[in-house]
Amino acid sequence: MQLSMAPTEAVKARRARLAARLDGTRALIAAGEPSPRNYPAATYPFRASSHFLYLVGLPIARAMLVVEGGESTVYVPPHDPADALWHGALPSYAELAAAVGCPVRPLTELPALEGAGAVPCVDARGRAAQERALGRPLSTPTEADEAVIDAMIALRLVHDAAAIEGLREAAEATKAAHLAGMKATRPGIREAEVRAAMVHEFARRDMTEAYGPIVTVHGEVLHNDVYHHELADGDLLLADVGAESTGGWAGDVTRTWPVSGALSGTQRTIYDLVLAAQEAAIAKVAPGVRYRDVHLAACRTLALGLVELGVLRGDPDEIVADGVHALFFPHGVGHLIGLDVHDMEDLGDRAGYAPGRRRSEQFGLSYLRLDRDLEVGMAVTIEPGFYQVPAILEDARLTAVAGDRLDRDALARFADVRGVRIEDDVLVTETGSEVLTEGIPKRAVDVEAAVG
Amino acid sequence: MQLSMAPTEAVKARRARLAARLDGTRALIAAGEPSPRNYPAATYPFRASSHFLYLVGLPIARAMLVVEGGESTVYVPPHDPADALWHGALPSYAELAAAVGCPVRPLTELPALEGAGAVPCVDARGRAAQERALGRPLSTPTEADEAVIDAMIALRLVHDAAAIEGLREAAEATKAAHLAGMKATRPGIREAEVRAAMVHEFARRDMTEAYGPIVTVHGEVLHNDVYHHELADGDLLLADVGAESTGGWAGDVTRTWPVSGALSGTQRTIYDLVLAAQEAAIAKVAPGVRYRDVHLAACRTLALGLVELGVLRGDPDEIVADGVHALFFPHGVGHLIGLDVHDMEDLGDRAGYAPGRRRSEQFGLSYLRLDRDLEVGMAVTIEPGFYQVPAILEDARLTAVAGDRLDRDALARFADVRGVRIEDDVLVTETGSEVLTEGIPKRAVDVEAAVG
Repeated sequence: MQLSMAPTEAVKARRARLAARLDGTRALIAAGEPSPRNYPAATYPFRASSHFLYLVGLPIARAMLVVEGGESTVYVPPHDPADALWHGALPSYAELAAAVGCPVRPLTELPALEGAGAVPCVDARGRAAQERALGRPLSTPTEADEAVIDAMIALRLVHDAAAIEGLREAAEATKAAHLAGMKATRPGIREAEVRAAMVHEFARRDMTEAYGPIVTVHGEVLHNDVYHHELADGDLLLADVGAESTGGWAGDVTRTWPVSGALSGTQRTIYDLVLAAQEAAIAKVAPGVRYRDVHLAACRTLALGLVELGVLRGDPDEIVADGVHALFFPHGVGHLIGLDVHDMEDLGDRAGYAPGRRRSEQFGLSYLRLDRDLEVGMAVTIEPGFYQVPAILEDARLTAVAGDRLDRDALARFADVRGVRIEDDVLVTETGSEVLTEGIPKRAVDVEAAVG
Repeated sequence: MQLSMAPTEAVKARRARLAARLDGTRALIAAGEPSPRNYPAATYPFRASSHFLYLVGLPIARAMLVVEGGESTVYVPPHDPADALWHGALPSYAELAAAVGCPVRPLTELPALEGAGAVPCVDARGRAAQERALGRPLSTPTEADEAVIDAMIALRLVHDAAAIEGLREAAEATKAAHLAGMKATRPGIREAEVRAAMVHEFARRDMTEAYGPIVTVHGEVLHNDVYHHELADGDLLLADVGAESTGGWAGDVTRTWPVSGALSGTQRTIYDLVLAAQEAAIAKVAPGVRYRDVHLAACRTLALGLVELGVLRGDPDEIVADGVHALFFPHGVGHLIGLDVHDMEDLGDRAGYAPGRRRSEQFGLSYLRLDRDLEVGMAVTIEPGFYQVPAILEDARLTAVAGDRLDRDALARFADVRGVRIEDDVLVTETGSEVLTEGIPKRAVDVEAAVG
């Protein structure tokens, strides 16, 4: 933890905005605690709660922030004399206070917090500490909890300048990772070798991954987390890999490239179709636009393309309305991105869906994580894909929706395309949008040229 | 999780040995669950409990092993149809059973377990699941719990052939990492760059780190976990970095090298002294030897050397008996190593200390994690060091033990040596010992030649 990295002015302003929204309700936000890996002293690298990072800017394990009216205080674990021996000189309360821009006190001085509201910490220990501090369980949110949660959602939905700077920092490292991954690719090595080249770009920047990387020749497995397959000539490699900046901001980018450096004709056809869908969706991003319509723009492009290729038959609009396209594109076109790669997913659809909107029950649309009207300062991913998922295409219940609109013979021509996804991170701006992850090879010819 | 990697015969034999020791007591061993990082679906890479890995060989999240007499059954989470969509085809119970060498059933069929004993899972969710299965809290161990714990300790203390193979696999990757780290070192870069080069060697082998790497120009901070300092000419870089093999076995190696590629005269003097202490300790390792005596052999070499350098005055044996040397070498000379880098540290000194032995209260010796008589098949680390820790040397209470035996003027000559540690992993053999992590540059000239 480098105190000099603290975004002091930004977190002060965020706390002031929170206090203004809360109108006197006290808020308790916990950083959480390190999680043990295989024994108590061997922990996973500590990642503070995103709500705490947003408001304090430094990952102080076990710390708690109390915001009360215009006053904020960060309570931190008291120093243990043994700490200096094992962990070196620790910052003083005064040094911490200067970095976080508000008073810092030992946790032993945490006041009684009746009536306060809290965002439940995702970490079990952090949450238990919050419950002890509040003197009540967090399983049933109180009105005060809901007020704090809604205020945090309102704040975090729209990124300030420091947040956008963090997203750009993550984007820069993410770009370096994808370039390194493409360069490292060659037949005969394992997926792990490409993944290693990619995350190396994070580690050398003293950053980490924003989420478990997907680097796979089986792109049709949507959440693939194994890396042992060998890359073969003719395979497509799908890499969904993003950095987390030193301040905790996420990058989230997917590229799909040919192991050999050359797409086959059928691969290129599908690749260009997915790219067209992504571009159509990005073109749609603008203030005031409903995100579901961004999703549907990608769906419509895909449906139209699949009809032109003879894989689907019928009217593209009907295909989309019925969800037939979801047999090949079962997930949503994207999600919020911020301090979490799926930003605020800990708060569920309360964050992702505008009040009054609910998830569709239609296969495909039901996986859309975001359905709000876009505002200037929101950041979202745009990530359509085409997959041949056996668990979908061999499931008569799921394919029934297609009726006679699916031509399996036409589809068989594309057997060498198991999965393609193309994803960028996009900021909503006054004039439309800005692709934060610009500059990572994306056109088919550029991707081919970057391999090996 | 690759089923083909399961050490089927080894885990069958281990379960049989466990059953033989338990004499009818049923044992419940849980794999644990993934820990959330910043929201529930974003988890840290899953690491199964070492006890589970030892007996089952595969990291099956949420699974539980029941050993009852000669019969073992692994209970696994029932398949969810959505799993196939997101995670691809999952192995069948029959495929899992073939890999783990015993029946595999859904967790819904877990029997009532009155009277069974358990090793408490370190992961909070895994432990809660165990408590539900047992119908009682694990906070106060029952006789059955203690029987299972003691049986696990007895088994895991002495490594079988498959375990030793795992340790060798980790050692090989650890060697590659240290060579890569030395090669990447040059003035002007940050510690993060060297760390990245080291862990890259793990990632490309589809392995991970056995513990949070220490890669620092501030070797005097014993548990340093930051990587932002710039490497300068004249600095020593201390790297305590070890791989975890795909099966979960740990490597744990420290090397200290000069950023410039050349040790100063004072650095070389201290380096050679620490190396002599390490060699003296390794030479002492043999069946029947008490580990504390291995520790004391290192202490004696250090004390003698510091007296010869004029830093300490007096009789080396008295210096060691009084713990004066611990002002420069405050930690123990090592610990057990196996599936955990501090093997079985979740069980505390019940694992590390022989029955009837207790930790010393003397500063220094109190940090010794292991005090058993060595047996063939045990693996330990040997890692003496020399540090100038401000929190020790400026603490009058701690330095009082030295009386007039500490010459601070003589010490001041070694100001450019903040911290040196040299560590290898050593297997106890019939004839003495074998260094599992052989071949990583260690003599001063070899280390110098490997840098840059």
